[in-house]
Amino acid sequence: MGKGGMSQGGAEEVRDGEEENMAVWLVGINSLKIQPFKLPSPGPHDVRVRMKAVGICGSDVHYLKTMRCADFVVKEPMVIGHECAGIIEEVGSEVKTLLPGDRVALEPGISCWRCNLCKEGRYNLCPEMKFFATPPVHGSLANQVVHPADLCFKLPDNVSLEEGAMCEPLSVGVHACRRANVGPETNVLVMGAGPIGLVTMLAARAFGAPRIVIVDVDDHRLSVAKELGADGIAKVSTNIQDVAEEVVQIHKIMGTRVDVSFDCAGFNKTMSTALSATCPGGKVCLVGMGHSEMTVPLTPAAAREVDVIGIFRYKNTWPLCLEFIRSGKIDVKPLITHRFGFSQKEVEEAFETSARGGNAIKVMFNL
Amino acid sequence: MGKGGMSQGGAEEVRDGEEENMAVWLVGINSLKIQPFKLPSPGPHDVRVRMKAVGICGSDVHYLKTMRCADFVVKEPMVIGHECAGIIEEVGSEVKTLLPGDRVALEPGISCWRCNLCKEGRYNLCPEMKFFATPPVHGSLANQVVHPADLCFKLPDNVSLEEGAMCEPLSVGVHACRRANVGPETNVLVMGAGPIGLVTMLAARAFGAPRIVIVDVDDHRLSVAKELGADGIAKVSTNIQDVAEEVVQIHKIMGTRVDVSFDCAGFNKTMSTALSATCPGGKVCLVGMGHSEMTVPLTPAAAREVDVIGIFRYKNTWPLCLEFIRSGKIDVKPLITHRFGFSQKEVEEAFETSARGGNAIKVMFNL
Amino acid sequence: MGKGGMSQGGAEEVRDGEEENMAVWLVGINSLKIQPFKLPSPGPHDVRVRMKAVGICGSDVHYLKTMRCADFVVKEPMVIGHECAGIIEEVGSEVKTLLPGDRVALEPGISCWRCNLCKEGRYNLCPEMKFFATPPVHGSLANQVVHPADLCFKLPDNVSLEEGAMCEPLSVGVHACRRANVGPETNVLVMGAGPIGLVTMLAARAFGAPRIVIVDVDDHRLSVAKELGADGIAKVSTNIQDVAEEVVQIHKIMGTRVDVSFDCAGFNKTMSTALSATCPGGKVCLVGMGHSEMTVPLTPAAAREVDVIGIFRYKNTWPLCLEFIRSGKIDVKPLITHRFGFSQKEVEEAFETSARGGNAIKVMFNL
Amino acid sequence: MGKGGMSQGGAEEVRDGEEENMAVWLVGINSLKIQPFKLPSPGPHDVRVRMKAVGICGSDVHYLKTMRCADFVVKEPMVIGHECAGIIEEVGSEVKTLLPGDRVALEPGISCWRCNLCKEGRYNLCPEMKFFATPPVHGSLANQVVHPADLCFKLPDNVSLEEGAMCEPLSVGVHACRRANVGPETNVLVMGAGPIGLVTMLAARAFGAPRIVIVDVDDHRLSVAKELGADGIAKVSTNIQDVAEEVVQIHKIMGTRVDVSFDCAGFNKTMSTALSATCPGGKVCLVGMGHSEMTVPLTPAAAREVDVIGIFRYKNTWPLCLEFIRSGKIDVKPLITHRFGFSQKEVEEAFETSARGGNAIKVMFNL
Repeated sequence: MGKGGMSQGGAEEVRDGEEENMAVWLVGINSLKIQPFKLPSPGPHDVRVRMKAVGICGSDVHYLKTMRCADFVVKEPMVIGHECAGIIEEVGSEVKTLLPGDRVALEPGISCWRCNLCKEGRYNLCPEMKFFATPPVHGSLANQVVHPADLCFKLPDNVSLEEGAMCEPLSVGVHACRRANVGPETNVLVMGAGPIGLVTMLAARAFGAPRIVIVDVDDHRLSVAKELGADGIAKVSTNIQDVAEEVVQIHKIMGTRVDVSFDCAGFNKTMSTALSATCPGGKVCLVGMGHSEMTVPLTPAAAREVDVIGIFRYKNTWPLCLEFIRSGKIDVKPLITHRFGFSQKEVEEAFETSARGGNAIKVMFNL
Repeated sequence: MGKGGMSQGGAEEVRDGEEENMAVWLVGINSLKIQPFKLPSPGPHDVRVRMKAVGICGSDVHYLKTMRCADFVVKEPMVIGHECAGIIEEVGSEVKTLLPGDRVALEPGISCWRCNLCKEGRYNLCPEMKFFATPPVHGSLANQVVHPADLCFKLPDNVSLEEGAMCEPLSVGVHACRRANVGPETNVLVMGAGPIGLVTMLAARAFGAPRIVIVDVDDHRLSVAKELGADGIAKVSTNIQDVAEEVVQIHKIMGTRVDVSFDCAGFNKTMSTALSATCPGGKVCLVGMGHSEMTVPLTPAAAREVDVIGIFRYKNTWPLCLEFIRSGKIDVKPLITHRFGFSQKEVEEAFETSARGGNAIKVMFNL
Repeated sequence: MGKGGMSQGGAEEVRDGEEENMAVWLVGINSLKIQPFKLPSPGPHDVRVRMKAVGICGSDVHYLKTMRCADFVVKEPMVIGHECAGIIEEVGSEVKTLLPGDRVALEPGISCWRCNLCKEGRYNLCPEMKFFATPPVHGSLANQVVHPADLCFKLPDNVSLEEGAMCEPLSVGVHACRRANVGPETNVLVMGAGPIGLVTMLAARAFGAPRIVIVDVDDHRLSVAKELGADGIAKVSTNIQDVAEEVVQIHKIMGTRVDVSFDCAGFNKTMSTALSATCPGGKVCLVGMGHSEMTVPLTPAAAREVDVIGIFRYKNTWPLCLEFIRSGKIDVKPLITHRFGFSQKEVEEAFETSARGGNAIKVMFNL
Repeated sequence: MGKGGMSQGGAEEVRDGEEENMAVWLVGINSLKIQPFKLPSPGPHDVRVRMKAVGICGSDVHYLKTMRCADFVVKEPMVIGHECAGIIEEVGSEVKTLLPGDRVALEPGISCWRCNLCKEGRYNLCPEMKFFATPPVHGSLANQVVHPADLCFKLPDNVSLEEGAMCEPLSVGVHACRRANVGPETNVLVMGAGPIGLVTMLAARAFGAPRIVIVDVDDHRLSVAKELGADGIAKVSTNIQDVAEEVVQIHKIMGTRVDVSFDCAGFNKTMSTALSATCPGGKVCLVGMGHSEMTVPLTPAAAREVDVIGIFRYKNTWPLCLEFIRSGKIDVKPLITHRFGFSQKEVEEAFETSARGGNAIKVMFNL
């Protein structure tokens, strides 16, 4: 199947004499079923991958609870999952860079390469994007998937399959840091110490940020952030009235100007704090998606030439994520707090664990 | 007086045998008085300029009505005015680029050149900025002012003094277009057809924008915009409920994607429209300052990587403005709708005319 | 045939009952033959185009004279030609943007979209590029070709097919101006008034360059450049000893600093002049390819932070070229100096005319 | 003395009852004399600094041997030295950021802040630059100097005065890395393992370069580079014929593509190697200044869009250098191989040591 094909879904072919490929299907609200998932034969530029590690993302939980996420609605049963790594089993006739047995991390989105956004290098914004577990495209929580070879990135020897699966959430932080141009002179504020806040913090550190302060309402999350390398932590309230004084507190903990703020929560209060705390000429990158309509002091920020940078997923991030992990600049292992196997019971437990939050950061399946 | 000195204010020296320098002082709410304004001797890098054309800005009117603008408060009587051009009368001992008799346009702000923002080329954000008629610094609606030579730009032969004074408002549009990176591939939406909307439209055209649509609630303003070169105009309501359908209307008039939107009004509705109408990967530049706290759909815009770009005044814009006017790429003359002389009565009338709005775009003093 | 396929060559299928597709084959040094050229059926994302206008490029002539160009060697008979426009005759099953009858200009290169350069938006550097008439890929001087739909750009109503074919050479100038970041503040020097120098000059003007000086050794070429809009022309020698004084001459004609120089010849002398004439912080863009190894004053230029920018072909230029032509910002018609029909005799004459140079700028086939 | 004044030279005032300020004067070829050096009183924005550590730069040695460097000629006796740090003794009336007793590193160049290059943030290219020990401006190898406060950067507690003086040579590497946009995805080749090659290598590592290969003709230099953190080293010849095979060798040692090459030697051979080894779309930054006119394969590099980036000194580098040293990302101490006191005899020995090269990297005076 060609480059633009729906490699991961719409399978029509039956492959006799082979094991049946099983996957986790989202079949209704709060209802996941392990069921057969037929795969197409790999096209000339595709590979077939045996999944070994698949993480649960917040969006997976959101689909499970509501059958929707942002503007996407699940109308037909859909295989879930998109944070994944595995081992190549079969390669298409034109694939020259991978061999059966290679361990790979998978970038989940297949873009069209025909629209102007793809051609200009912003393929993450492609309107024809086919993305694992974004309806109507099937995901990757399955024994095997078929995927374009150029979206499968070989793992360095010292990088595990679980670490490979972590490239997906880490990519969000990496893309945010790239768009906000974080470097060795960028003092960084991170609003929110959940999984996205943590990967953003780790990415900012790897991009060279000399000083990072992270803010949350929860003591446990802040202590995790501290252990993972935050230079300063600030506990705040959810009361919007407290913004001004909390900005003072944040500035004190930072000890220098805030060049770039990442709002990894996306609420009126976190965004107000980010906009107010950032220095003239700085940037606020909106990563989290708490509120859709926002009430924030945008005009005074604009009058200090504080730009608000948006991000959507990521592009070209896998090689850099793997380099960060390989070199030890980023250690994603402490983020993996829970592990489950691939049975109906464990799948349900895993999603419950992820949904419950608490001390769970990343819940991982080992297949 | 040195580079960093308060060249335009705090005069202590009396210059015997010379005419008395008169200026328009803001002495209280709705109260302007023509009174003497003592000038310092020009320092080695300064010049003394006889003012010939001074325009009235919205901020001047705002100070007159309320004695404040944004965070700035007028606490002592202050000379008003900052859009100006004149003729050099005296040059400091080290000035090599200007001679008495030269016609010049004045850039109003003196930055410190010692802070990191100045050194990095973003001097408009300098926290030590001394800017005409921003308290406590005196303005330029006076017979003469003393100013650094490097902020006085010689007019090309075919550019009039009034056109020179127009470099100041035009600079806002030019700086906005630069920050939003407008070029020959950028289709532009302008929200608001007031003076700032119009100079932004003219600047966008001069930067090569192939297609510009301008939006307002007022028919007269829109017809002026059309005459000045808008490719399309859209009349809208002030009703926030109408955003979605007006975006459809704007897209229809544009006929192609909106790459960059300039919100030259700065209200919840105009900003909501700008954010919603702009294409994935595009930019919204917030120029107007209607609302301070804004309630807008920021998250869906960020999720399309629509960035919000702030601007504050301008930097390095005079040479480009003069080139645009000299070459005929921009004609600012139609913006000058009213002219007044330099008497107490005319000063009052001029400010009333500007405050009243109506068909007044730019009100100009000829001194 | 799929996106990455060799759409324009290697045809094996016979299409019964149809006219035979004829093309101009380069079969040996100085030997061109009109012979049948079998086409594949269009793949789902391809179109079949009836060629109407095809221009002759310097590289075509180079292949004809030597069977090679840069590192590319013609080892098998090859259809020549790559500057072209035509009319859609058939569209693939997935093509949604084009219909039979549409007039289109063709971008000649098909990149892989799997390598990192493609994914980062620099597809012109793709090592797997398949490009019209770059061996072993066949060109487009034929009655018909099959090509990916996304590389066929619909002509605006007021743009002729010949103008459409001119998008290809114009793209070189547009890409050079983009890489050198030409805009309304960029004073431009162009070394060489041949076809490439002229399209670069036209592009620089369209990007807003306020002042353009063009340099050549030939009076006729300079007079053409002047007619096409150069602000200043400078006649120079081929004597490398004259560089210093010619730089003085160029600066005098320019009347202001040279921000960006385009070397559209690529010889030691032209590059030396470009490097020496460009202001501190400026750029020299090397477009022409006269000498391979160059002896030039690179170090003093680098010590003024004059960067040397390389270019290879172009990317994403067709929409902008068409907009420039549609809007009248660029008029390419005067560049078309000779026209020929599609017979063996006229083909030979056309290539001789192009090779001879003289007053020929662009030689065009009307099919 | 004002911002633009020649703070460090042209002293006319005698300061009675004070110690006499002594400095090292370059009085002729190979002739240095310790003689009195009168200082002006600090202007309102100046400070007086007691020098504690001053390094010897290659340009100092060049002036000593030839009384010239690049286009600069020493016509009058001149105080030498410009890599320095010391302790504040006196601050001007307007200085708010420094106090007597503060330990500071000095940025040596005072720019005009009136020209367009200064205003655009490229002050290192200012044509009015007054730079320590660039004739006719005096240097800083003296007991005391007077300098603008904004060019004196307070040392963090854990940074020594000698490390402070090392900010100057390190700044060259930092500026080169910034201009070449080195980051965590940039594999770097450094041509030349002399002092400039080493600081460039250290800077590239601090900017995140994952893999750095350094090339030289000298085994000792390469072993030093290896100790300082090079990932790979390549010994090469001075024979220009060897370029092609050495590029193969370098690529093998790199193990991946070369994104950015720094030519820290600046000879035909090093630049040819750099141009040939760099990947399509990469950059070559010319840092060294061996040959002025260069014979290099510029055209094939340009045809791969390999840009040649020039650098001149540095700008805004001190804060980042101090942060790199403070944080331990860069350790400059191993570069200081020799130390001398401030006597006539030791001054002569120190310069001889630096001129001799051998195992000397940085020769430092302790005053």
